[in-house]
Amino acid sequence: MRASVLRGGRMVYRDDVPDPVPGPGQVLVQVRACGICGSDLHFAAHGAEVVELSGELAGGRGMDLDVGRDVFMGHEFSAEVLEAGPDTDTYPAGTLVTSIPVLLSEKGVEPIVFSNSTLGAYAERMLLSAPLLLPIPDGLDLKHAALAEPMAVGLHAVNKSGIDRGETALVIGCGPIGIAVIAALRVRGVENIVASDFSPKRRELAALMGAHQTIDPAQGSPFDSVKTRVVFEAVGVPGIIGDVIRRARRGTRLVVAGVCMQADTIHPFFAIGKEISLQFVNAYEPDEFAASLHSLAEGEIDVTPMITGEVGLEGVGAAFDDLADPERHCKILVTP
Amino acid sequence: MRASVLRGGRMVYRDDVPDPVPGPGQVLVQVRACGICGSDLHFAAHGAEVVELSGELAGGRGMDLDVGRDVFMGHEFSAEVLEAGPDTDTYPAGTLVTSIPVLLSEKGVEPIVFSNSTLGAYAERMLLSAPLLLPIPDGLDLKHAALAEPMAVGLHAVNKSGIDRGETALVIGCGPIGIAVIAALRVRGVENIVASDFSPKRRELAALMGAHQTIDPAQGSPFDSVKTRVVFEAVGVPGIIGDVIRRARRGTRLVVAGVCMQADTIHPFFAIGKEISLQFVNAYEPDEFAASLHSLAEGEIDVTPMITGEVGLEGVGAAFDDLADPERHCKILVTP
Repeated sequence: MRASVLRGGRMVYRDDVPDPVPGPGQVLVQVRACGICGSDLHFAAHGAEVVELSGELAGGRGMDLDVGRDVFMGHEFSAEVLEAGPDTDTYPAGTLVTSIPVLLSEKGVEPIVFSNSTLGAYAERMLLSAPLLLPIPDGLDLKHAALAEPMAVGLHAVNKSGIDRGETALVIGCGPIGIAVIAALRVRGVENIVASDFSPKRRELAALMGAHQTIDPAQGSPFDSVKTRVVFEAVGVPGIIGDVIRRARRGTRLVVAGVCMQADTIHPFFAIGKEISLQFVNAYEPDEFAASLHSLAEGEIDVTPMITGEVGLEGVGAAFDDLADPERHCKILVTP
Repeated sequence: MRASVLRGGRMVYRDDVPDPVPGPGQVLVQVRACGICGSDLHFAAHGAEVVELSGELAGGRGMDLDVGRDVFMGHEFSAEVLEAGPDTDTYPAGTLVTSIPVLLSEKGVEPIVFSNSTLGAYAERMLLSAPLLLPIPDGLDLKHAALAEPMAVGLHAVNKSGIDRGETALVIGCGPIGIAVIAALRVRGVENIVASDFSPKRRELAALMGAHQTIDPAQGSPFDSVKTRVVFEAVGVPGIIGDVIRRARRGTRLVVAGVCMQADTIHPFFAIGKEISLQFVNAYEPDEFAASLHSLAEGEIDVTPMITGEVGLEGVGAAFDDLADPERHCKILVTP
C-alpha cells in the first residue's frame, strides 16, 4: 500500500509498504485525514536527538527506534473501519472513528507517533485498538475530527492551569498548540484571552479562534500591557521561560506547553521572589481527547481557520517544508 | 546603644548607634534573642548583587540601600516591650513579644531585613509595629520564640506543596530551611519524611527534627532509593533544580525553597515529558508565622537541637564565620 515515511530526514513517498494485519483486539482502518504536527517536523530534523533524550527520559530503557531505517509517523487522524482482528468486537465496517494514538498489542502499549514498525496515519491504512476507538459524531467533518488530538493538548494545558473564568490568560506563541490553548480557554468561558505572536497571520488566526486581544511582542513585552497571572508558553525555544520569570507578576502560574528540546537558562531568584509556579505539561488524558472531539462536534470549536492546506501522501515532504512559514501555514492535513 | 552592623562585608560591633524613637503605631522593644539567618550571611558576602537583583525584581524601583554605608540586619527575634509611641495602644511594658519583620511607618511598609536606617534585631533595642505584635506564650523559651520566623518559612513551603499525609516527602538540603520544612512536615502528620544532606551532622539533626530516614547523596542519588512525588529543594545552588527534573518521577511537585542567586540551567524536555511542576516559594503569610509560634509553644516543634551556639553583639562577626561549617553549626542566636 501507499505511505509517506521518514528516511534520512526527509518524508519519502512509498507504494510498497506491506498492508498491516490486525491482531486480537485490533482493527484495520482506512486513514481519511491526518494532521501534520510540529513534533513530526522536529523529529524529521532532530530524530537522533529525540531518540537519545527520550531514552534518558525513560530511564535508560531507550526508545526502540532506529533513525537509520524508515520511520512511520502521523498521530492526528480520522479513519474508517475496514475489518476487525480475530475475536475482536468493534464497530461495523464503514464506521468513521478516531482514537488516541496508542496501539495495544501483545508487546504492550505502543505509542503511534514515531516507529520503525507500527504504522502511523501518513499511510493508506493502519491498525488501531478496538477498545480505544471513538466514533465520529454525525455531521463532523473528518478533517476536523483529525484535529481532536492537537485540540486535546490545548485542553489538557488549560485544565492543568486551574484557570478561573474571571482570570486573564496570556498565551505566548500562536502555533497549533497556542491556538489549541486559546480554543480551550474560550470553551471554558475565560473572559479575557490575550495572545502574543510575532506573525501577523498567526495573530489573526488567534483572534478568529477566540483571543479577545492580540499583541505583537516586537512592539513591546506583553507583560508591559497585560495584567495577568496565568501564562501559557507555547513557543518552546530557550529563553522564553526565563523571560516570563523576569517579567511576570507575583504569583504567576506559568504553564509550559511548548516543547523546548535544548538546555535553557533561568534565574531562580526572580521566580522565588515572586513565588511563581511552573507547570510543565505534555499530551492529555483519554477523557480530554473525548471532550475535544465533543467540542468539535458541538461547534464549540471550529478549526476551519487553522486548516491552511491539504495534500496527498505524495505531498507530505513538500508540506513539511511549507510549514516552516507561519505566514502561510498553521495546519496541513494529509488526505491519503 | 550597642549594635552589630554590616560594614564593608563584615559584621562590626558599635556602641554609638542612636536609640530609636517610636512613632505613632510603633513600639520600642528590648531585643532578647535574634537568630542569624543564611540570607544575612549571603547579604554580607554579596550585598551589592542582592541590591541589584532586588531592584530588578521590584521593577526597577530599586532597593533603597547603600552597601557603602552601615547596614542594620536581624529579622528572627524575640523582644520585650519597653514603651509605645504616641497615640499607640499596645501591650504593657515588660510583655514578651515577637512579630513578622515588618515596620509600619509614615513612609509605608518597611521590611526589617537589610536597611541603612531601620534597625534590625542585631541591636539592643529596635522598633516594632504595634498591630503586628504577637505575645510570646507563657513558658516558651525566648530563644525558641525567635525561631518562629525561620520555622514559618518551612511551614509556608509545606503549605504550598499541598502534600497529603500519605505522600512521601524528600527534603534536599538540611540547613535551617530544610530543617524547618522537615519540622513542618512532621507537624502536618506526613508519615514518610526523607532528608538528604552531605553532612553527617546535618543528617543527624534532620532525624532529631522529624525525618524518618536520612540519605547521604555521596552514596548515590536519593531518587534511586526513594519513591516520592513531593520534593523540597532547600540547597539553593545552581544545578539542583536541573538534577531533580532529570531524576524525579513523573508528576513530581518540586517546591523550590532554596534561594539560588545565580543563573541556573534546566532541561525543559525532561520536565515536560514527566509533567513536573515547580513551585518557587518565599517567606510566609502572617497566619503561618502565628501558627509556627503556636507549634513552638505547644511543643509540636522543639528547636533545641537546631541551636548550636549563642553569642553577644560583640560576637556576631565571628559567628558569621563559624556558620560556614555545617558540621559545627546550624543556628546561632544573638542575645544582646
